[in-house]
Amino acid sequence: MKFATLKNDQRDGELALVSRDLSQALDIHHIVPGLQLLLENWESYSPALEQLYQQLNTRSIDSAFPFNSAAAMAPLPRSYQWLDGSAFLNHGHLIQQAFKLPPQDDERIPLMYQGASDTFIGANDPIQLPSEDHDIDFEGEFVVFLDDVPMACPADQALEHVRLISIVNDVSLRSFIQREIRSGFGFIQAKPSSSFAPVAVTPDELDGNWRDGRVCLPLSVTWNGTLFGHPDGGEMDFSFAELIAHAAYTRNLGAGTIIGSGTVSNKDSRRGSSCIAERRALEMIETGSMTTAFMQFGDQIRMEVFNADNETVFGAIDQRVSQGVVYE
Amino acid sequence: MKFATLKNDQRDGELALVSRDLSQALDIHHIVPGLQLLLENWESYSPALEQLYQQLNTRSIDSAFPFNSAAAMAPLPRSYQWLDGSAFLNHGHLIQQAFKLPPQDDERIPLMYQGASDTFIGANDPIQLPSEDHDIDFEGEFVVFLDDVPMACPADQALEHVRLISIVNDVSLRSFIQREIRSGFGFIQAKPSSSFAPVAVTPDELDGNWRDGRVCLPLSVTWNGTLFGHPDGGEMDFSFAELIAHAAYTRNLGAGTIIGSGTVSNKDSRRGSSCIAERRALEMIETGSMTTAFMQFGDQIRMEVFNADNETVFGAIDQRVSQGVVYE
Repeated sequence: MKFATLKNDQRDGELALVSRDLSQALDIHHIVPGLQLLLENWESYSPALEQLYQQLNTRSIDSAFPFNSAAAMAPLPRSYQWLDGSAFLNHGHLIQQAFKLPPQDDERIPLMYQGASDTFIGANDPIQLPSEDHDIDFEGEFVVFLDDVPMACPADQALEHVRLISIVNDVSLRSFIQREIRSGFGFIQAKPSSSFAPVAVTPDELDGNWRDGRVCLPLSVTWNGTLFGHPDGGEMDFSFAELIAHAAYTRNLGAGTIIGSGTVSNKDSRRGSSCIAERRALEMIETGSMTTAFMQFGDQIRMEVFNADNETVFGAIDQRVSQGVVYE
Repeated sequence: MKFATLKNDQRDGELALVSRDLSQALDIHHIVPGLQLLLENWESYSPALEQLYQQLNTRSIDSAFPFNSAAAMAPLPRSYQWLDGSAFLNHGHLIQQAFKLPPQDDERIPLMYQGASDTFIGANDPIQLPSEDHDIDFEGEFVVFLDDVPMACPADQALEHVRLISIVNDVSLRSFIQREIRSGFGFIQAKPSSSFAPVAVTPDELDGNWRDGRVCLPLSVTWNGTLFGHPDGGEMDFSFAELIAHAAYTRNLGAGTIIGSGTVSNKDSRRGSSCIAERRALEMIETGSMTTAFMQFGDQIRMEVFNADNETVFGAIDQRVSQGVVYE
């Protein structure tokens, strides 16, 4: 199944089923008002939704209407918990090598921070930020949406709790990153709201490409119309199972928790990067200086995942960065 | 006004007004279903609630019933954002001095992490944790509940957004703290769910003791029946106005955001501490060794704030630590 949340001038929007090819949508808010409630009660709602989804895909529902990604909020417009890992060690290695930073303490334990989850951004909505001077960057990531995960859930039982999968643009303000890392307390100013693809999908929608707790497909990142990278999700050093077990080690994870992979990054640099910071690190390593500048207001960023049949899986994040409203 | 959220077997509970002396409660969920909605629409709901509150305090509402703190969940049982500062620099100074840790980079910028907000704990409910081996500690803090704060809101306009005030036991697992600080990504395993006092109160309930964005009253912390500390909130090095402006610097803060002061800590060590880690640091500084052990399952922790007339302001956090359900 594929789900979107449609704009309705409310903070939580209206839940819709979306056909596999993303052409048709069906309002299901009379069955389950929102994605949060669905994640809290997956077992009771999903059988009826599965039936509707089959009908939607065979074009046999009259009340279906064309799906427009611009009408979508983030699938879960706000969440009680967004925990973002850094599961592609290659990314950290490049940053450390380029800027002569100390290595991570113990690479057997994943890095993870808790990020802003109160106002996620829709796939085609502007990323509004206060200043270009903050070194605006994108970060392409895979994410999973969970139902209730009990405290101390082991990794080998963690994937049962993955209900939906999607991609994220984890907007990053690089000028704050190093100070916030040195603080030890994680990211507040460096990580404003993230943007989500138009739909989140059940794992079966990935066919055989959801393997070992990884999305084994490339994430295409296009910046101002030019392909910037297409690194593959299969190279995650920590699976989502390990990330979930790490997060749940001392706490219950409430339904609706979202776990992120961190910047998708591949050892083969010919696949490019999913964030500017990593390309700059590669430039520094190769040439001793950085030539790619960070984003400017008006820049466009697009992220999308295609399956083996060249069909879009989550729809595209396709949005621009702009000046936020100046506070009066 | 004083608000509690009463248990009803749902995740968000049922909102109630509580009389100033905490003796009587009034179910108001037919007026506003929950505290999240009230914080989103404060201006429209509060005039009617103010009227009811006056009547409740004069015992002129028949449907009022005795308030029992054991029936209370956290005032906001889950929140889309919990940002916890470290606004009492004395606490960090003692830890640094005792354990020969490097000083903070720049003390003009507050430390702040984002913590678990998906399942807060009620004032009298058990703190369920996986193991005593994780060095279980309490942390007494003041917190504020916000309405919508626009990105880049300056400190001199930030206090307009403080709708409610309360206290928190920010449960901490010290065995993970130093590794997570070194990771730079903040606290995941070291900071499980926090507990809240039975009620959250509007700033006017503090009379003149809400000054300069600080709660200028002592926080009494009692561990297993013995007073552990009563440090005063007035010594905050950063006001809540500064903490809010720091958090909102690059992002909107959605209504329902909770901001914490961090461990209340006073330079006069005769006032004691609001966490075990700080007492251990003082022991280390004074004697070269630490004699106070961390919490054990069965331990009781109580936190409460009294005004000049010796009336309880928020009610008491009074709870025990216990073994969490073992995962099967």
